[in-house]
Amino acid sequence: MEDAIGMERIKVGVLGGTGMVGQRFIQLLDRHPWFEVAEVAASERSAGRPYEEVMEGRWKLDSDIPPLVAQLQVKECTPDLDCRLVFSALDANVAGPIEEEFAQAGYVVSSNSRNHRMDPDVPLLIPEVNPDHLEVIPIQRRRWTRGGYIITNPNCSTIGLVMPLAPLHKKFGVAKVIVTTLQALSGAGYPGVASLDIIDNVIPFIGGEEAKMEAEPLKILGRLEEGRFVSAELKVSASCTRVSVRDGHLESVSVELNQKASSEDLIETWEEFDPLAGYELPSAPSPPIVVRREDDRPQPRMDRDEGRGMACVVGRVRECPILDYKFFVLSHNTIRGAAGAAILNAEYLYKKGYLS
Amino acid sequence: MEDAIGMERIKVGVLGGTGMVGQRFIQLLDRHPWFEVAEVAASERSAGRPYEEVMEGRWKLDSDIPPLVAQLQVKECTPDLDCRLVFSALDANVAGPIEEEFAQAGYVVSSNSRNHRMDPDVPLLIPEVNPDHLEVIPIQRRRWTRGGYIITNPNCSTIGLVMPLAPLHKKFGVAKVIVTTLQALSGAGYPGVASLDIIDNVIPFIGGEEAKMEAEPLKILGRLEEGRFVSAELKVSASCTRVSVRDGHLESVSVELNQKASSEDLIETWEEFDPLAGYELPSAPSPPIVVRREDDRPQPRMDRDEGRGMACVVGRVRECPILDYKFFVLSHNTIRGAAGAAILNAEYLYKKGYLS
Amino acid sequence: MEDAIGMERIKVGVLGGTGMVGQRFIQLLDRHPWFEVAEVAASERSAGRPYEEVMEGRWKLDSDIPPLVAQLQVKECTPDLDCRLVFSALDANVAGPIEEEFAQAGYVVSSNSRNHRMDPDVPLLIPEVNPDHLEVIPIQRRRWTRGGYIITNPNCSTIGLVMPLAPLHKKFGVAKVIVTTLQALSGAGYPGVASLDIIDNVIPFIGGEEAKMEAEPLKILGRLEEGRFVSAELKVSASCTRVSVRDGHLESVSVELNQKASSEDLIETWEEFDPLAGYELPSAPSPPIVVRREDDRPQPRMDRDEGRGMACVVGRVRECPILDYKFFVLSHNTIRGAAGAAILNAEYLYKKGYLS
Amino acid sequence: MEDAIGMERIKVGVLGGTGMVGQRFIQLLDRHPWFEVAEVAASERSAGRPYEEVMEGRWKLDSDIPPLVAQLQVKECTPDLDCRLVFSALDANVAGPIEEEFAQAGYVVSSNSRNHRMDPDVPLLIPEVNPDHLEVIPIQRRRWTRGGYIITNPNCSTIGLVMPLAPLHKKFGVAKVIVTTLQALSGAGYPGVASLDIIDNVIPFIGGEEAKMEAEPLKILGRLEEGRFVSAELKVSASCTRVSVRDGHLESVSVELNQKASSEDLIETWEEFDPLAGYELPSAPSPPIVVRREDDRPQPRMDRDEGRGMACVVGRVRECPILDYKFFVLSHNTIRGAAGAAILNAEYLYKKGYLS
Repeated sequence: MEDAIGMERIKVGVLGGTGMVGQRFIQLLDRHPWFEVAEVAASERSAGRPYEEVMEGRWKLDSDIPPLVAQLQVKECTPDLDCRLVFSALDANVAGPIEEEFAQAGYVVSSNSRNHRMDPDVPLLIPEVNPDHLEVIPIQRRRWTRGGYIITNPNCSTIGLVMPLAPLHKKFGVAKVIVTTLQALSGAGYPGVASLDIIDNVIPFIGGEEAKMEAEPLKILGRLEEGRFVSAELKVSASCTRVSVRDGHLESVSVELNQKASSEDLIETWEEFDPLAGYELPSAPSPPIVVRREDDRPQPRMDRDEGRGMACVVGRVRECPILDYKFFVLSHNTIRGAAGAAILNAEYLYKKGYLS
Repeated sequence: MEDAIGMERIKVGVLGGTGMVGQRFIQLLDRHPWFEVAEVAASERSAGRPYEEVMEGRWKLDSDIPPLVAQLQVKECTPDLDCRLVFSALDANVAGPIEEEFAQAGYVVSSNSRNHRMDPDVPLLIPEVNPDHLEVIPIQRRRWTRGGYIITNPNCSTIGLVMPLAPLHKKFGVAKVIVTTLQALSGAGYPGVASLDIIDNVIPFIGGEEAKMEAEPLKILGRLEEGRFVSAELKVSASCTRVSVRDGHLESVSVELNQKASSEDLIETWEEFDPLAGYELPSAPSPPIVVRREDDRPQPRMDRDEGRGMACVVGRVRECPILDYKFFVLSHNTIRGAAGAAILNAEYLYKKGYLS
Repeated sequence: MEDAIGMERIKVGVLGGTGMVGQRFIQLLDRHPWFEVAEVAASERSAGRPYEEVMEGRWKLDSDIPPLVAQLQVKECTPDLDCRLVFSALDANVAGPIEEEFAQAGYVVSSNSRNHRMDPDVPLLIPEVNPDHLEVIPIQRRRWTRGGYIITNPNCSTIGLVMPLAPLHKKFGVAKVIVTTLQALSGAGYPGVASLDIIDNVIPFIGGEEAKMEAEPLKILGRLEEGRFVSAELKVSASCTRVSVRDGHLESVSVELNQKASSEDLIETWEEFDPLAGYELPSAPSPPIVVRREDDRPQPRMDRDEGRGMACVVGRVRECPILDYKFFVLSHNTIRGAAGAAILNAEYLYKKGYLS
Repeated sequence: MEDAIGMERIKVGVLGGTGMVGQRFIQLLDRHPWFEVAEVAASERSAGRPYEEVMEGRWKLDSDIPPLVAQLQVKECTPDLDCRLVFSALDANVAGPIEEEFAQAGYVVSSNSRNHRMDPDVPLLIPEVNPDHLEVIPIQRRRWTRGGYIITNPNCSTIGLVMPLAPLHKKFGVAKVIVTTLQALSGAGYPGVASLDIIDNVIPFIGGEEAKMEAEPLKILGRLEEGRFVSAELKVSASCTRVSVRDGHLESVSVELNQKASSEDLIETWEEFDPLAGYELPSAPSPPIVVRREDDRPQPRMDRDEGRGMACVVGRVRECPILDYKFFVLSHNTIRGAAGAAILNAEYLYKKGYLS
């Protein structure tokens, strides 16, 4: 199928296309100028039936299922899909070996799953932050031999933290970060959090989340030395909670810098940050970091859709009596924190010639 | 009126008895063994009518108005009430001078308002933590000349923080505290937070709250030297948010200690902490700090009523990669964090002979 | 074990003791003066372990598990429990045959499950409304031969409707009822309704609920003729929705009467209704119907605990331009609408000598 | 200012432009092809300052204030605005005389306020339903003498009811309607419902709402005879509740028809209903009534944005044991139920030549 300007679109597949993140992939890829969802794969249970039928009562987004995808026959997650690029929204219980099979078979896998994020030759990519990490792809390709490889995007709560840290780290050096998250319900998938558990309540625990937030930023902000990742020298301490919000993770952050900076320096650094300007990636927000100066922002419901859900919104920058500065940051957990991130990664790969 | 064992109860008044905290005072004092609500005072607008009538559509607690109070004529907040002790739930806009007038006129004022908390001769009292601070009362009494004085209890978010810090500070020394709060709606009074502002949302701002949390603990944990308060040498950094929870402030805390301690040392310190044991104060929880060992506690809805709303519940104690330890603490903001605290303070005064 | 006055308590079992309703049985039976939970039975998966261990992370009530029950070994649901009376909170998928096995084996089964409610020799009992329906018990006992039998209580949304209808029906005759319900989350069990489905939302559908509400009242308000139930001659039309409320079903009711009556007649009829007065049943609310005259009551959060969750609260009685009168009624769905109802039924059986 | 195709847009004013409905007017009129917001008027308190400044902390919609409106100086509500058409979102306390002044001064007033809805020469207009009611405009114009006049749109809960009733009434005759509403928070304006009143709760009362729902449909579905409105011969009985939903009123409806019809007849009637097809009104949804066949629709969060908030969504059509049919209907209360309705009315006026 061709798009408006006559370009042939690249066929893509969505692995795990029936869950919350899988649905977002399908929604966000609808009418994408470069990519076209040609395949949806899911568990054996769903395979063999039209996507629309499988999703009866399970499609949870406000917009309807895109008509072309609605008609697709759901496939199993085996590497015989008619496409070159697959997005993985697979559950961590199964994602590991399936993604490897696809890479082995020559597919490019842009994964939102956590399984391969910390692998030594897999980029944990944020195009605005560590595009140079793509240099490990040739190393990885050697492993799989048939041209395939895996790239990953960070955990939904990590990305909201790393986006504002990255330009600070580059300019002033970030030494220490203490963060408490207030995370949205959609982050737990569907059915996820029981309504009885969250009405008039907060749950101060999300399994495995704090460990991910304390480890992933070190790889993302780290550097490559002769094809090997060297962790950034900063420490992160995370405390994660679940609140009664549909979408949008809010994070309360305290940060210590290596070099002195004023709060205006921070704001300026964020407002000037737009490393993808000029790339014309369809999903790249411009700017990627929006600073609000009101007293009471960012708020999940008001700010999660900034940059069509791809921007991070920072606010309430103020001095911290213990570390240097405090601020809040908000990001949309199933767009910038999941499906949108993996799509942006693939767009960047395409622009840089990694899909050919 | 006499109670069951023939003791005559002390007549008390409630200033600002129509607001959220005022209602809690009246609810908590219902059938109190030592105190009896003899007077309710409020704004001019309400004065002169029976409490029940004034409260039509405004009484927001689950239990009904105690019948004896329902019939009371609401008075104005002038120091001609027939009682010796008044509890103040006055709005900070008016509390300052009114509380002074009552002290001047010889009343004992147990106030929940913030106005006099930091005054140099006013105790900011938590009976479990700094009972020695009552030593400034004679100094204050000299000011007012007729035997009256003011005592205050901490802000609703401060007390949940200071309760677990206090025994740690005594045993190991607390050097630094970084805290993010998730505060309940009732903390904003009534009508308070608009439902449209909080449904599917979090508000990362509560006016003046962070400053209070950063200042009050220093006085509370400080010491008296020749009748003057010397601030504790610790630093607090607070970030405050409002979440869609009815009652119960949850706090995510990181703490640095002066002396090394294991996480079991912390838990043991908390579990052994019960300085009011033996005092038999009607509102004193025993123990005042409850430690839960489950992964996902404390939770506002599950834990806020611990110790009839007077205990603090601590959980998820774990190492902090930056400071020493992290934990969550929950306390009921309108009971331990407001009316209950002021009542406990008055009970302690009574036991120690400060009411005679 | 004996209670305070030396009476030996009757040992009871709870079938399906791990679900939401099962938990309520255990909570409500704690310190019950007549009954003592001696056995808890559940699915094979849970059997063989202490109740406390089985319930880790699954106990959802605000009070803790009663210590004596916490230690009980969970049994399978087979009729070799050491008790005479069992309460059934079994899932409708399995309740049918299991309850029959227990009746067959000589147990008295007080069931909250829907399976046998409409059986021709099983009472669908509300002690305040149709105690004469117990007359079918001897018929049923003949079926089972060993003295056992089954009694049932109505569906959680039926009881809130029938309670106010019953005295009206007796006095004026009820001809037609149109009802729309706003039902609480706990009615769906645990995990039940996903938080993503109900935040900022209403679900206008509860499987099977409308049919139950349209059928059960006809049996309950019907009469026995020579051991056979004759349906009441009234029609019910029900529409059921799920709203974001934890406990408490609210119902909007329009009713047509056979005989003329004023709205004050209705209120008087309800306020005078107290057929269990004098029986001294531990769980019987007195009065069972509370009429509130405020404009904006009943409300789930304010009124669900009336009569310790056993009373129905009626309000906003006004003329209906189409049928005769409109009103709202609220009842606690897991207490009066489930576990509490089955316990009250058993108390009535006991008082009437049906347990010996 | 001209739009894309060179047409000069009509200048319009928004009276009461700072409240919830006023904000919706401004949002919905942003980039409107025919109308351009040239004036915003509000209370004295707000007048004289830029709209943006007045709205600091009060703008509650997810999209930002349109830049051109942000800069407008807010005016007082006096008839010296530079425009020909005004939309009124005034509070009912003040709307009556202000709207009359504007009509008197020659303005066309498209009002969402209730004050003039039942006036004998003021249309209560739904363009899909009773466009012939515009015939009273010449009568009204005679009153005001300078060419101005007032038109109104129904109450937010009325319109969701009348839209599906209208084509049924035309085809089969509607005799009786019993409706219970579950209304959204935004219907109460801002700050409106206190969060403490609605968390874990439902409020079974909305002042004046039931009376409006019982009266307005009779005028809307009535007919004009020699310039006088004759009420439709149907009866409506309404019960109104407020639930914890941000936007979207859900209604549970039972209806009795004069002529027999099958449920498929109803559905077909609704699906064929599109009287504005061909008019090309920018805000007219096509179709205006969407029928969903799933078991559990319509739902506020899933369906309120249908037709950009201008369509009504009907579902769960089934037989009623008492009247003839039951169904649920949902409509967006601040779009189709308020600002969007008034804009559509003005578009229809324009198309029909009533604005020249």
